[in-house]
Amino acid sequence: MKIIVDAMGGDNAPIEAVKGTIDAVNEYGINAILVGKSSIIENELKKYDYKKEKIEIINAEDIITNDDDPAMAIRRKKDSSMVVGAKALVDGLGDGFLSAGSTGALLAAGIFIVKRIDGIDRAALSVMYPTLKGFSLLLDAGANVDCKPEYLHQFALMGSIYMENVMGIKSPTVGLANIGTEKGKGNLLSKETYELLEKSNLNFKGNIEARELPSGDVDIIVADGFVGNVVLKLTEGMAASIFSILKEEFTKDFKTKIGAGLLKPALKNIKGRMDYREYGGAPLLGLKKPIVKAHGSSDAFAIKNAIKQLIKFIDKDVIKIIESNNHVLINNLEVDNNDL
Amino acid sequence: MKIIVDAMGGDNAPIEAVKGTIDAVNEYGINAILVGKSSIIENELKKYDYKKEKIEIINAEDIITNDDDPAMAIRRKKDSSMVVGAKALVDGLGDGFLSAGSTGALLAAGIFIVKRIDGIDRAALSVMYPTLKGFSLLLDAGANVDCKPEYLHQFALMGSIYMENVMGIKSPTVGLANIGTEKGKGNLLSKETYELLEKSNLNFKGNIEARELPSGDVDIIVADGFVGNVVLKLTEGMAASIFSILKEEFTKDFKTKIGAGLLKPALKNIKGRMDYREYGGAPLLGLKKPIVKAHGSSDAFAIKNAIKQLIKFIDKDVIKIIESNNHVLINNLEVDNNDL
Repeated sequence: MKIIVDAMGGDNAPIEAVKGTIDAVNEYGINAILVGKSSIIENELKKYDYKKEKIEIINAEDIITNDDDPAMAIRRKKDSSMVVGAKALVDGLGDGFLSAGSTGALLAAGIFIVKRIDGIDRAALSVMYPTLKGFSLLLDAGANVDCKPEYLHQFALMGSIYMENVMGIKSPTVGLANIGTEKGKGNLLSKETYELLEKSNLNFKGNIEARELPSGDVDIIVADGFVGNVVLKLTEGMAASIFSILKEEFTKDFKTKIGAGLLKPALKNIKGRMDYREYGGAPLLGLKKPIVKAHGSSDAFAIKNAIKQLIKFIDKDVIKIIESNNHVLINNLEVDNNDL
Repeated sequence: MKIIVDAMGGDNAPIEAVKGTIDAVNEYGINAILVGKSSIIENELKKYDYKKEKIEIINAEDIITNDDDPAMAIRRKKDSSMVVGAKALVDGLGDGFLSAGSTGALLAAGIFIVKRIDGIDRAALSVMYPTLKGFSLLLDAGANVDCKPEYLHQFALMGSIYMENVMGIKSPTVGLANIGTEKGKGNLLSKETYELLEKSNLNFKGNIEARELPSGDVDIIVADGFVGNVVLKLTEGMAASIFSILKEEFTKDFKTKIGAGLLKPALKNIKGRMDYREYGGAPLLGLKKPIVKAHGSSDAFAIKNAIKQLIKFIDKDVIKIIESNNHVLINNLEVDNNDL
């Protein structure tokens, strides 16, 4: 197996991207291609011990940043590490692609260069959402802000296949992010999506209220990209603001400082439990080849974990399973349409 | 001034509703009407000291619960405390109405009995959203799950008038809940709403990302009722789950227990800062008379605070100001439509 890594993507590139890739090569025995300015990458590679034949470089002079307009950048920056990496994936030089760069640009690269699976209407950004019980797969986390019920149905299907095969969860449960638990609650989109999911052969557990999302009662949380992104970002924002309140209150006087000192390991544990780095990357589901987005602020450890996830994504043939299941889904829908 | 209180609404009714009303009567010198089963209310009233002439009772035999379908309940349970209270408001027996009962039913009572202000398309549930800086007014928090840009424009206008007059904030700032800060981000609804708000004479600060909502950078957060409700509920859910993690980690062993003991006052402070009870009730904006929804689990203190807010809502003539400003808004829109 050979994976392609965007060496220039993310806040800590190329240092952490290169180090994480080497760690993954050493630990998992895979081969890798690093895409980016070869002189810079070579300089980084020199610092480490690894089997030289296991890592290649493909040169790319340009870099896409978060300030670039995603779709425009993919069209114009032909020699960027992201575009060159995505093309290498399409050309079969590697089996999967990882980048910690701009989410929007990576999605655009996926859609315009790698292309969607036939019959899948929209590709979804799927993130590991930390919960009290571990994590849920949240999709769509922001790729598609205006959705139709069929898209959400496809997200649920792709998420189920991913969780079953990559994360090893038997018959994973699906919940629809909503503002009430009963059937019939929510907006037009949620009501129609409920109907589709109820009729599907997925393990659909009904609506899940936003209040219950952090409890982690379902394996897959389905939402349109606007709501999914609000959920993801607000969760981060709430965690950050509660920790800032804790810090403020815990450093108020001598007594609280002593208390906080005694709780230091516990507080560190808590932060660890919410650490995105533990959960690997965010798979882009619905594309013809495996692509995983690592968090923009990934360090080598996070890159390595995201690569581990990409390896499983490739190894378990998730895309083939999505392709074959999607045919069943399309056929079922056709039957349903005839029924009307 | 005379306010009407639904004595039977909420988890702790009638005990806390009656006690909170008496506290408000004693503290603010207002008169009150308690609506509900008179025998039960009389029994409660006996327990306290207050000027008898200041509190009347209107009998209502029935109660609307959270299990009732809101619209159906308003139509069928004619002798419920909520319907009787709303009718008393329309009949001019009091100046404002407070209930801690079912949010949906109170909204339905507002729309079907009290009716919307002419030219206002939708009534909004507006909640005080706790932030690092105090609170923001979040609307709509769940009344209207499928919105048009004009509705959100009206929400922003009504929220601004409320915050300026009732909460005393000069030229309050408005933010549009969105998934990115730049203009042009978000779904169709947010893009079109942005245009309207930008052209308005409101103090519009642009998009506000979900991650920044807890920071409290704007006085008014505008969202459609689906997103607003997700924001509100997820915020509650995140706070609850982080506190449950804290509790788990802080009671793990002897050392953490000592630490947590030293931090007890600090932790209590933190909970206080997120306490809905401090922030009074949720005004229903867009109706012809003032209605405030108190939290379902309100105790007497929360009821009293919500009444205080209702008093200001009445006293500052918010509804008249909305009526006159809305005419300006409608006229402006007509001009804009002619421009097209």
